[in-house]
Amino acid sequence: MNRLQRALDTLVAKVDTPAPIVLVDVMQDNIDRMQAFATERNLDVRPHVKTHKCVEIGRRQVKAGAVGITAGNVGEAEVFAAAGFDDIFIAYPIWPSGTKGVRIRKLAVTTRLRVGVDNFAAIDAIADAMGSEAGRLEVVIEVDCGARRSGAPPEAAGDLAVAARRKGLVPVGVFTYPGHGSSGREARKRAAMDQEAALIAAVRSFKAVGMMADVVSAGSTPTIEYATSSIITEIRPGEYVFNDLNNTRLGACTEDQIALFVAGTVVSDWVPDQVILDVGTKALSREGNAEIGYGAVAGTQAVLSKLNEYHGFLPLPAGDFTPGIGAVLPIVPNHVCPVVINFEELIVTDSTGSTLERWKVDARGFLS
Amino acid sequence: MNRLQRALDTLVAKVDTPAPIVLVDVMQDNIDRMQAFATERNLDVRPHVKTHKCVEIGRRQVKAGAVGITAGNVGEAEVFAAAGFDDIFIAYPIWPSGTKGVRIRKLAVTTRLRVGVDNFAAIDAIADAMGSEAGRLEVVIEVDCGARRSGAPPEAAGDLAVAARRKGLVPVGVFTYPGHGSSGREARKRAAMDQEAALIAAVRSFKAVGMMADVVSAGSTPTIEYATSSIITEIRPGEYVFNDLNNTRLGACTEDQIALFVAGTVVSDWVPDQVILDVGTKALSREGNAEIGYGAVAGTQAVLSKLNEYHGFLPLPAGDFTPGIGAVLPIVPNHVCPVVINFEELIVTDSTGSTLERWKVDARGFLS
Repeated sequence: MNRLQRALDTLVAKVDTPAPIVLVDVMQDNIDRMQAFATERNLDVRPHVKTHKCVEIGRRQVKAGAVGITAGNVGEAEVFAAAGFDDIFIAYPIWPSGTKGVRIRKLAVTTRLRVGVDNFAAIDAIADAMGSEAGRLEVVIEVDCGARRSGAPPEAAGDLAVAARRKGLVPVGVFTYPGHGSSGREARKRAAMDQEAALIAAVRSFKAVGMMADVVSAGSTPTIEYATSSIITEIRPGEYVFNDLNNTRLGACTEDQIALFVAGTVVSDWVPDQVILDVGTKALSREGNAEIGYGAVAGTQAVLSKLNEYHGFLPLPAGDFTPGIGAVLPIVPNHVCPVVINFEELIVTDSTGSTLERWKVDARGFLS
Repeated sequence: MNRLQRALDTLVAKVDTPAPIVLVDVMQDNIDRMQAFATERNLDVRPHVKTHKCVEIGRRQVKAGAVGITAGNVGEAEVFAAAGFDDIFIAYPIWPSGTKGVRIRKLAVTTRLRVGVDNFAAIDAIADAMGSEAGRLEVVIEVDCGARRSGAPPEAAGDLAVAARRKGLVPVGVFTYPGHGSSGREARKRAAMDQEAALIAAVRSFKAVGMMADVVSAGSTPTIEYATSSIITEIRPGEYVFNDLNNTRLGACTEDQIALFVAGTVVSDWVPDQVILDVGTKALSREGNAEIGYGAVAGTQAVLSKLNEYHGFLPLPAGDFTPGIGAVLPIVPNHVCPVVINFEELIVTDSTGSTLERWKVDARGFLS
């Protein structure tokens, strides 16, 4: 990962730390590689924008061949719809609290919109909110494949689809998220197998009530590699666009495929064998633990051992890595998604550090 | 804390979840109580805006009697200076990376600005950046009192002040942060005693080089209660404005003094004895651990056991708390500061829920 430090050294006079730096060549490779993988297997790519929340990156994903985008909430969908994205799936069991019913209705009449549902009460509430426009809203039944989070039992998918159709909504298929596949390569594989079994059962449950599941939608960056069953029609990876240390540990990417890091400056060095960087939880979020740390200096063995809000504690491993006061270092995060939303904009360069653009994190803060 | 649920029930039709709700009457009491405590002890209050990043709340703190504000970085200082705040202390060992030197110089000529320094290299770099305007910048020497984070040894404070003066900067005093006082009431007390000892040594070190420390500045909400030594001139509390579960656990506030919670909606309930809320790390940040959980439902024993990005896992304790799909619940965070920065605006009401204003989180995203 020394190219991170090289790119940073070139940029350093122009970058006020902490700052999120994107290597656009690495990112574009990630986008193209995922698309090629999917195309080869006849899968649609519907990337989750939660990772980048950035219109420019969404456009690149669509340009590469994505059929549309996945959002995590209504606010993200609104931001991307306003930017011209016209095929959006909110892969979440929506409840139309507050003014969300009105907002969903408004979105659905101006763009192709799908939302997730996993229970009868939400189907009723969403249909009521849509009123005479219910036929404009596609719904996708969420089923659980073992993450024990949201999602109906797969056998209930058909009944939920019938209920949605009865209320005038347009049930188009099923989706699931194999969130239990995050403890290693074997867990990823098992979760992908659970995902396939749940989706097969859900499609069967549709057939049992005389309906077709046109959309059979699967997560996620760590399990994509195994999400190649003939029943799956689309994948919703998010993190692949940037990757991070967690995905490296899972074997879902290599270190060279990490496209985002946070530039941080050494601001204090009084404690022996430790320096303090200006990257704390405000920049990195508290993602990690005592064992893996909270982010690593690219190209070294040094790992942040503790974060305060504006301070990152970096013990210096024995050896010749002894950054001085004022040194600017590339920190690779454990989990990239909660990092991006801390910043107004991404600083976009390439592996040579010779270009510099700033892309807004358009949908940050739009949480409801 | 049932008033949180009562306020929320009144507001619920107007609030799209997840949303941060502020009870302005509780917040104003917190501001007034801290100011009264300080005034009685002849201490200046210079509240840290990192907690709220909100101009309106900063104005209320100043109106109550604060002498100025504390910021954690240059970006926060710029936002508050632009809003008319004219006495700002960046309580951080600044290194002028990128364009920060130019930004600090610009700020210092338009407002009364103090910055923290803890090493000779930074003094040189900041003085160089200030150039002919060095005399406009006050510096406060950071000393360590046991947190082993940033800060010079207290005995070095005088030499650093001399170096700063030699470079044309204006050394005005010393500050420290007792960050090691966060494991309980006794730890708070010990940290406050360490703080006092460090500040006394730092002031003595100023005297030894023939200088006066006019400013002797102490943290922080959990240790304020014990920060009453005659040597301290100002306190820099941040979290007291909202409070949170961590401060409750430390004995630094009562539950009734918590002024901010996050409204979340139950969106799924398929797993027995568990519901899923729409509050994940995007709303709450990952602050907590397996033992204390990641946020509590006010007025109940229920605690979030796990967070994904858009999902909070809420096991239901035995008893009659069985919120159904669509229920909107008040979640009290463990640590309030990383919650506020996730949102564009605060939804401000009072304990009756009868008023509603929206205040922008003005300085969110300004991290450098």
